[in-house]
Amino acid sequence: MTKQVAVVLAGCGVFDGSEIYETTLTLLRLDQLGIGYRCFAPDVAQHHVINHLDQTPVEGESRNVLQESARLARSDISPITELDSDAFDAVIVPGGFGVAKNLSDFAMQGDNMQVLESVKEALAGFKEDAKPIGLMCIAPVMVPRLLGDGISVTIGHDPGVSGAISAMGGLHRSCGVEDIVVDHEHRVVTTPAYMLATRISEAATGIFKLVDRIDEMMG
Amino acid sequence: MTKQVAVVLAGCGVFDGSEIYETTLTLLRLDQLGIGYRCFAPDVAQHHVINHLDQTPVEGESRNVLQESARLARSDISPITELDSDAFDAVIVPGGFGVAKNLSDFAMQGDNMQVLESVKEALAGFKEDAKPIGLMCIAPVMVPRLLGDGISVTIGHDPGVSGAISAMGGLHRSCGVEDIVVDHEHRVVTTPAYMLATRISEAATGIFKLVDRIDEMMG
Repeated sequence: MTKQVAVVLAGCGVFDGSEIYETTLTLLRLDQLGIGYRCFAPDVAQHHVINHLDQTPVEGESRNVLQESARLARSDISPITELDSDAFDAVIVPGGFGVAKNLSDFAMQGDNMQVLESVKEALAGFKEDAKPIGLMCIAPVMVPRLLGDGISVTIGHDPGVSGAISAMGGLHRSCGVEDIVVDHEHRVVTTPAYMLATRISEAATGIFKLVDRIDEMMG
Repeated sequence: MTKQVAVVLAGCGVFDGSEIYETTLTLLRLDQLGIGYRCFAPDVAQHHVINHLDQTPVEGESRNVLQESARLARSDISPITELDSDAFDAVIVPGGFGVAKNLSDFAMQGDNMQVLESVKEALAGFKEDAKPIGLMCIAPVMVPRLLGDGISVTIGHDPGVSGAISAMGGLHRSCGVEDIVVDHEHRVVTTPAYMLATRISEAATGIFKLVDRIDEMMG
């Protein structure tokens, strides 16, 4: 049986959705390893739409997270409410501000953040069955609320974000862009990606390591 | 001096813009080879907006090609009118329906198509100076109008599209997804990418070969 990985998306674009390169590089590596994947996203409105030219919010425009994520998935995507963890061996959440705006409200609430209920429910089965969970870039900030206290993660070395992770009960470990942090007990793998990357090849190195480790952990 | 490549985008998403994976894989390979790049796109309205979930046009919604391309470029993009071929050693055009809807009107006009004037002007300097030009997926359909008659290209083996290329004065050569077609005389390199790819790793193989060949041709 081919291993199967669920990939959770948050829109399409670094400033209001999932980071495009992180997502593409994740799917590339999964496919290169012969691992099957399927993308999922919540069917909710985006927090806002950012004009990626000047990075300002677009007044009066609304987009749907599932529809925009479908761009990144070439239409091959399902609502996250249909994510059955029994059908998958692991789950990966790429980064991008959409994780902090659409999957959670970290961008607005800091360490008072909440994670979207549908995302929590989708991930619960992976946690219960100790299936590997990978998160990159800003996504590890969800780990304390999503998976519980005392789990080691990295978002690189941003003091504000790592402080918030600590305040919520997580353990933050500094990490270089081309490396990963593995919490063996909780089966959680994280990498800084575009929290630190200045070049796409740097992000690729860390992301490929994350996917390779998830592959090993799936056994 | 680091070699520099211009990358021409047409929006963000396979059905109404640039194909996301093709673009990302192009940038990845350029960066892995130590080649600098900059993205450009026309500052015009998209032909239409496609809901990538169900692949139907969205009524009453309008998006700008440059702004949406900026998602794919992580904001690091300029209007195509600012593309000065003297500053670059080669140019690459990824595919996606945006090439046939926003950079040209092939999707609507078939072999009566025209290429956007700003795109023709931007590419003219590369042609005059015999700098390598790479195109993938559906983008090679622009070659007869963009670069002239008698240039060998591939879009895989779709009979309708290859027939249109022939009708416009181009030479179409069938090609597998993991391979490239090189017109040595005209310095044009093409690969089928998602005209044929069923997996992202297949597209990557052909795209990496295209970028590697462009690198060799830049000398």
